[in-house]
Amino acid sequence: MRVPAHLAKVVSLAASGAPASLLIVSQAFSQSPEPAAREVPARNLAIPTTVSPQMQRIVNGPLRTNWDLLPKTGEEWKALADAGAAATMKNLPAWREHLHVKVEPAVMDGVKVFWVTPEVVAPENRERLLVHVHGGCYVFSPGEAATAEAILMAGFGHIKVLSVDYRMPPEAYFPAALDDAITVWKAVLKTNDPKRMGFIGTSAGGALTLEMALRAKALDLPLPGAIASGTPMSDVTKTGDTFHTNEMVDNVLVSTSGFCDAAAAFYAHGHDLADPLLSPVNGDMHGFPPTILTSGTRDLLLSNTVRVHRKLRNAGVEAFLQVFEAQAHAEYLRDDTAPETKEAFEEISGFFDKHLAK
Amino acid sequence: MRVPAHLAKVVSLAASGAPASLLIVSQAFSQSPEPAAREVPARNLAIPTTVSPQMQRIVNGPLRTNWDLLPKTGEEWKALADAGAAATMKNLPAWREHLHVKVEPAVMDGVKVFWVTPEVVAPENRERLLVHVHGGCYVFSPGEAATAEAILMAGFGHIKVLSVDYRMPPEAYFPAALDDAITVWKAVLKTNDPKRMGFIGTSAGGALTLEMALRAKALDLPLPGAIASGTPMSDVTKTGDTFHTNEMVDNVLVSTSGFCDAAAAFYAHGHDLADPLLSPVNGDMHGFPPTILTSGTRDLLLSNTVRVHRKLRNAGVEAFLQVFEAQAHAEYLRDDTAPETKEAFEEISGFFDKHLAK
Repeated sequence: MRVPAHLAKVVSLAASGAPASLLIVSQAFSQSPEPAAREVPARNLAIPTTVSPQMQRIVNGPLRTNWDLLPKTGEEWKALADAGAAATMKNLPAWREHLHVKVEPAVMDGVKVFWVTPEVVAPENRERLLVHVHGGCYVFSPGEAATAEAILMAGFGHIKVLSVDYRMPPEAYFPAALDDAITVWKAVLKTNDPKRMGFIGTSAGGALTLEMALRAKALDLPLPGAIASGTPMSDVTKTGDTFHTNEMVDNVLVSTSGFCDAAAAFYAHGHDLADPLLSPVNGDMHGFPPTILTSGTRDLLLSNTVRVHRKLRNAGVEAFLQVFEAQAHAEYLRDDTAPETKEAFEEISGFFDKHLAK
Repeated sequence: MRVPAHLAKVVSLAASGAPASLLIVSQAFSQSPEPAAREVPARNLAIPTTVSPQMQRIVNGPLRTNWDLLPKTGEEWKALADAGAAATMKNLPAWREHLHVKVEPAVMDGVKVFWVTPEVVAPENRERLLVHVHGGCYVFSPGEAATAEAILMAGFGHIKVLSVDYRMPPEAYFPAALDDAITVWKAVLKTNDPKRMGFIGTSAGGALTLEMALRAKALDLPLPGAIASGTPMSDVTKTGDTFHTNEMVDNVLVSTSGFCDAAAAFYAHGHDLADPLLSPVNGDMHGFPPTILTSGTRDLLLSNTVRVHRKLRNAGVEAFLQVFEAQAHAEYLRDDTAPETKEAFEEISGFFDKHLAK
């Protein structure tokens, strides 16, 4: 529709049969309104018919129970993280089996990692490696639970993945996660061509991929050949329009008043949340390698994702955005059998294949 | 966050200090819920701080007045369309002047068109031409009002645009708009290389660009070198998740119960709304040329846009999605001085430049 909202009065007068002269007078007095907060009424979200049965079940799940129950101590955060990790890990044996992927723990320059290797590495990926930084609001998904996304990536992409089990609160605070990821990046640079390597992560991990690139630039380290940043926590200052429009619509994160922003603040440990190493949308992205971004229409972090996409494009970076119908935050990581999961990772694999050196 | 919603109970038990054994028992009984409609409470939409002042004014405008006032007769629709056109046309002299664009009416094989020409055509665009199909729910933006988007494209892109002033109800119904657009396409094919030409349109025009490609395939006509489809009305059967999530959030279209879906149904004139020539998301998009899609996070048609993007990608088509922070439906067409308008059209121009033959 081309009719500007501030002219709606004119249009409604026309519909009522008002003469053209009156329309013109009316229009002359019509002014663009001053911006004001606007109330959106309650509504029922219908069940989307435009996603697979598996995804329908995921996107229509109730809001995460106790999404606004915020732990008060490091021990309480750790208990929550450990319980979540135990639950996630129950899925992983089946995922590894379906996707023909093996996971082996290791330590690299003092940092815990997991080698996540597909049974068959594609010929074009023989010399390639992805460094994976897991999500979980900088506090969740410790240990092997960190490998969920890496398993999907290795399995669907037929590529080796090195997943960083970075230190988290209450063991260590900002910038420990980033320090550990950069330690691993420096280690793999000793024996690998950076142009044959990529960064991948989602949520806090999506932010970390961008923070790693910012830090690498600052340290004059080589950048990778490409980055896959899934629905990044690119702005932890609670800034971004979908924090409001998708509040209570996103059944995973639910609200900026919930556990995830609290966890990020717990990790920040008093550090300025607007620092680009915590809110990378504030960073200088000139010179970044090609970057693929993934989100969903119900994602609380859709704005955080598209703002990074536009920022990269405005910095002249090749950046590709995929947004999945009806998905809330990171729901493309939830069911390895959902066609949308395969679709997301095949798009990401194709992007890496296009941009990483062979 | 990696913790699946159906495990939230476990996690909350963990937070309450329940022993691990209880957690495991609890988890075993936890089931994915059956999909169900979910109520989202009322909320206030804050004013986004993440857009330009011009765009802030646009996205925070009140809901379009009388968005649910539906004309009952062809004459009432025409009065509404004429009033909107008169209002739009008041802006156009300033746009033409700012952007150094001239507009000249013509008739091409019986179809009314406007030649929209920038004062300076970029050297790489000398032999290129874009065919523009305007938006307006298939009923609005008659005559010169049709040229608004074409002026932005010609001005920001330094490229010649031919805007089709296709017949609309109550003068003519489906498939008149498409027939007229294809008549123009056949006419320009006589003297232009299709690979040097593109289609561009937004809303109903965004759908028409896709319908033109479907019709061209069916008629064995050449396809253009690229397509720019802005927030297409790709599914007029009221299907798509953001029809629900962005209801009353989008201040332009507001709701599928509003004027725009009613207008599309009026144009369809009893024809099946699921026909790919009315709902092109249902069409076979194999063989489409590279396509750029534009939307906003508050757009009622965000789902309609991303579903087309995924469909194109799954058909192996090069397709690029840009989604603008906080914008409702087609708000990148509202103010020629907004930086976001320039940004959107520069992205589109770059896409055409990359994909059209020189």
